[in-house]
Amino acid sequence: MADTVYLDNAATTPVDPRVFEAMRPFWIETWGNPSSVYAVGRRARRALDNARDRCAQILNARANEIIFTGCGSESDNLAIKGCAMAMAEQRGWRHVVTSRVEHHAVLHACEWLAQHMGFEITYVDVDGYGRVDPADMTAAVRPDTAVVSIMYANNEVGTIEPVAEIARAVKAVNPLTVVHTDAVQAGGLLPLDVEALGVDALALSGHKFYAPKGVGLLYLRRGTPLVHLLSGGGQERGIRAGTENVAYIVGMTVALELAYAELSQRVAHVSALRDRLIDGVTSRIDGSQLTGHPTDRMPNSASFAIDGADGESLLLNLDQEGIYASSGSACTSGTLEISHVLCALGLPEAQARGSLRLTTGVRTTEGDVERLIDVLPAIVERVREVTPSLVG
Amino acid sequence: MADTVYLDNAATTPVDPRVFEAMRPFWIETWGNPSSVYAVGRRARRALDNARDRCAQILNARANEIIFTGCGSESDNLAIKGCAMAMAEQRGWRHVVTSRVEHHAVLHACEWLAQHMGFEITYVDVDGYGRVDPADMTAAVRPDTAVVSIMYANNEVGTIEPVAEIARAVKAVNPLTVVHTDAVQAGGLLPLDVEALGVDALALSGHKFYAPKGVGLLYLRRGTPLVHLLSGGGQERGIRAGTENVAYIVGMTVALELAYAELSQRVAHVSALRDRLIDGVTSRIDGSQLTGHPTDRMPNSASFAIDGADGESLLLNLDQEGIYASSGSACTSGTLEISHVLCALGLPEAQARGSLRLTTGVRTTEGDVERLIDVLPAIVERVREVTPSLVG
Repeated sequence: MADTVYLDNAATTPVDPRVFEAMRPFWIETWGNPSSVYAVGRRARRALDNARDRCAQILNARANEIIFTGCGSESDNLAIKGCAMAMAEQRGWRHVVTSRVEHHAVLHACEWLAQHMGFEITYVDVDGYGRVDPADMTAAVRPDTAVVSIMYANNEVGTIEPVAEIARAVKAVNPLTVVHTDAVQAGGLLPLDVEALGVDALALSGHKFYAPKGVGLLYLRRGTPLVHLLSGGGQERGIRAGTENVAYIVGMTVALELAYAELSQRVAHVSALRDRLIDGVTSRIDGSQLTGHPTDRMPNSASFAIDGADGESLLLNLDQEGIYASSGSACTSGTLEISHVLCALGLPEAQARGSLRLTTGVRTTEGDVERLIDVLPAIVERVREVTPSLVG
Repeated sequence: MADTVYLDNAATTPVDPRVFEAMRPFWIETWGNPSSVYAVGRRARRALDNARDRCAQILNARANEIIFTGCGSESDNLAIKGCAMAMAEQRGWRHVVTSRVEHHAVLHACEWLAQHMGFEITYVDVDGYGRVDPADMTAAVRPDTAVVSIMYANNEVGTIEPVAEIARAVKAVNPLTVVHTDAVQAGGLLPLDVEALGVDALALSGHKFYAPKGVGLLYLRRGTPLVHLLSGGGQERGIRAGTENVAYIVGMTVALELAYAELSQRVAHVSALRDRLIDGVTSRIDGSQLTGHPTDRMPNSASFAIDGADGESLLLNLDQEGIYASSGSACTSGTLEISHVLCALGLPEAQARGSLRLTTGVRTTEGDVERLIDVLPAIVERVREVTPSLVG
């Protein structure tokens, strides 16, 4: 990616070379099946156990509370569907509470429960910054609420949700309700202490913090009722079958350790660049505004609504300049739908259409940021000219 | 693994260096999110589309019938649970037929349907070779049979099931019943033409044919009713959410192409070594017998019952000689349970306890095989001496 500017680190990140080197032996030398009893299998098993211990330490959890999965979406699905089904079977509880600004992995998992398992879902509103009020969340909790799912940080507008407050408040109303947090966007940049957060379940995805795509993690507090979703061999204590992807699990572990060992430098680096983006864009482009919370936001996330400019056109024009950015979340940025997040924030359609997300990473440079700030004004002007229905 | 002999290629295989080289760019250069609209995302998308086309070609399927998953177990789970749930919702059908010798990914998926979805499961018996009689399978099919799941080749005793005959016979009785085959063990060594097999669904796992652990594939015939299991972004046409593991998907594709381009040489190589193993073990060890079918068996699989010898002890003794083998399937070989497969074959417990599976691979040499044949007799003698309850 020489001469290109990557400002979409919330969508995915490149693999850290140190992560790559940590993974390599598990394809080439120690490729045994961790379920095998002989030496090359036992070596793979030890690497897996060791990875679990190290991930547990970073999350302030126990090793047997860590379940390795194939992606962040799988982690969210396992927590939400698995816990909800268990509560339905054990107690007849069929109600789930979540917010309107969750990632599709959460929203669609809830819809699946409604469609296939007869659950009722309550979607809690957010304020203009995308924040959930803990009081609104607890007001929605009922005696039959099986699961509350609240994201740690929003993927589109970067707003950090008051997860610890919500978890405490929910438990005060219904101590048996399982509290899950989708921490996919927060992983690698916000603290992940599950005791401090007070959650029963927490989902992470490796590729958001410089591990490869195709590996995730679910923290599940001991004693949390769960119906497993993926049946088979007894891997992950029977909770998640499938021969373990030892290479990626080791890679994710190293990536997580690096992220938290280097946390203060990383946060300082990405947030300084983010602040320059926010300042540069809002000061140089009339009719632009920051979306999401001004201060309680992901250190790497600068998101905007640009009046009268079509987001897709902005992206295509930036792409032609070799600048990679996003409009809405990556998972749906190939579509023309208006983001459900921006709708929930109450943005008028004309502004929501002009959404632009710029997310910095450890490799982002000041030069990258200045380049974006230099070229964006002319692009916005051009795009506004060809977006007549919105400027007319 | 210098100076060691790996005879457990049915458990897992090392990554082919050509596969590794094909994957590498997708961690280092082309690491974009395939859902992103800009250049580095589009390059990842093209690699993914290209992989899908190539996998489809090998299976004689269409590209939109290929779903990439995180492992073979996930592929089996998606086919069995997903199709069964769809048939239950659309038609009220809640019956599944399978055999007694399936992999746990299939058996436990069926048990999950019974436990959580109110399904009834019929387990069809096998003969002394582990073969299902198609007539027994069709006799079990009812007007409300949602899914029939039959493995292509058995992982423990290597027996090849008459999948095409079964599929035809089932469809003659109930044309709407979904016929799924777990082809995880067969992948890379048996033909995978889904039209010739006549199945609606077929599961593969990359790590059985020199791709890494953590990637699988499901063929699903167009029009087959399915409830998706993993909700989220619209990846895999909404059937399987989660940012795609482009590196491993490309790796699995290359591994599949290599396997079928080199098929006749590979089969000749592994089956010659397998035949030497069968001959060497049965001729040199009294009270040993081949398990599974004598001719309709996986070209790489030699499996035995050794009278009066404990299988676990055999493995540990072989391990000390640097020889890696298996007893039962890898997924449960860490446990002391008697294999459900050997029980289904009608082997008495004393023989079933002495099960030994030797599976050859492209890297296996004649020297490896001779080494096993040289050391095994003394090991069996030693193990028999310390297994008094079985020889007494």
